Amino acid sequence: MSDIKTITVNRSAYADNDLEADALREYLKERGTFLVNLMSSPGAGKTTTLTALINSLKDIYRIGVMEADIDSDVDAISIAKNTGVKSIQIHTSGMCHLDAGMTKSGLDGIDISDLNLVFLENVGNLVCPAEFDTGASLDIMILSVPEGDDKPLKYPLIFQKCDLVIINKIDTIGYFNFDFKKCEETIKMRNKNATIIPISAKTGQGIDQVKQYFIKTITNWKEK
Amino acid sequence: MSDIKTITVNRSAYADNDLEADALREYLKERGTFLVNLMSSPGAGKTTTLTALINSLKDIYRIGVMEADIDSDVDAISIAKNTGVKSIQIHTSGMCHLDAGMTKSGLDGIDISDLNLVFLENVGNLVCPAEFDTGASLDIMILSVPEGDDKPLKYPLIFQKCDLVIINKIDTIGYFNFDFKKCEETIKMRNKNATIIPISAKTGQGIDQVKQYFIKTITNWKEK
Repeated sequence: MSDIKTITVNRSAYADNDLEADALREYLKERGTFLVNLMSSPGAGKTTTLTALINSLKDIYRIGVMEADIDSDVDAISIAKNTGVKSIQIHTSGMCHLDAGMTKSGLDGIDISDLNLVFLENVGNLVCPAEFDTGASLDIMILSVPEGDDKPLKYPLIFQKCDLVIINKIDTIGYFNFDFKKCEETIKMRNKNATIIPISAKTGQGIDQVKQYFIKTITNWKEK
Repeated sequence: MSDIKTITVNRSAYADNDLEADALREYLKERGTFLVNLMSSPGAGKTTTLTALINSLKDIYRIGVMEADIDSDVDAISIAKNTGVKSIQIHTSGMCHLDAGMTKSGLDGIDISDLNLVFLENVGNLVCPAEFDTGASLDIMILSVPEGDDKPLKYPLIFQKCDLVIINKIDTIGYFNFDFKKCEETIKMRNKNATIIPISAKTGQGIDQVKQYFIKTITNWKEK
């Protein structure tokens, strides 16, 4: 069906995931590869957003994508087809999140020697991925309008942990009962440093703002 | 803010959750209380669906609701206000699912002596709740149209485990690229015995069909 490389990862044996994640961040810094961890509920639009974002960034960075899923290769195939960048599928053996050791296995699988920006699309889940530092230098979560503006109240940790909250499917706000201002206030209550950008991956609205955020963030990271 | 009872449950100490779940099912059968486990992604519409369904069933059954969440009481308050039935909030101490022991603690907290139908609204998550039998006699999952028709491909276990798949927000199908027939086929591939009912909790479409499903299922359960 496709020539997408698929690797299967298992729960890591490391006792201290935080230590492992810090070591991975250091390793990636030395190699000049910026790793982004992308989290959301199932169906919030991670793959569609990633496709739009990669197409806006691929002339600036050498990009790779690791698509983590419990099963299926549909996302890695879709990313490869719609962006042309190097993409692999990670199967998590039923696990509901990736930890730093599993992420390192994925990075070894994709071969980062020619990449300076790698996206990890985490398993669709608002609970477990927030508990495990993957070693990424940027944590992003996508909340989509149809999910409702109360999600920052109900899933506190993921909003506390992320640097950027993308609010996707903003083009449907007229249909759903979603109070943007209230949502923004609740996110800020959880995490006053979070950047919030509304987008529509479908129409392209807001993608340029996310692109500018990336360029600035990666420049700052290089200078640190 | 409200007089909703909140209990906090912790990971159970039982080594064998399946045994514990079977024992709970037996205990509930003896007492004539039918327990329903309701699962979905965050924001698929569990609480709105439950509200519509309870209002259609509350003249037939004596209903109670246990709302499980990592944090916040918004769902239990909303259910109590919009249906008038007995409702408690279960906080999961950060856990991403409920097991049979946690469910039993919830049932003790709500007091089932005057109830013959109890709903457990599980934590919003398509991965972990599927791995733990709660002791319910009916497992329902809600998939909402904005999440996409590929979810049964990507989250196989939850579709395998449930008896009824409710496809919610069907009123938005014209806006989202959701192929109902393809989704139905993929669900049947995972679980040929699953019943699939499209609804809109917002407009009321399909709620009567779910009501009839409940009446039939509970009648069969009583006769077993």
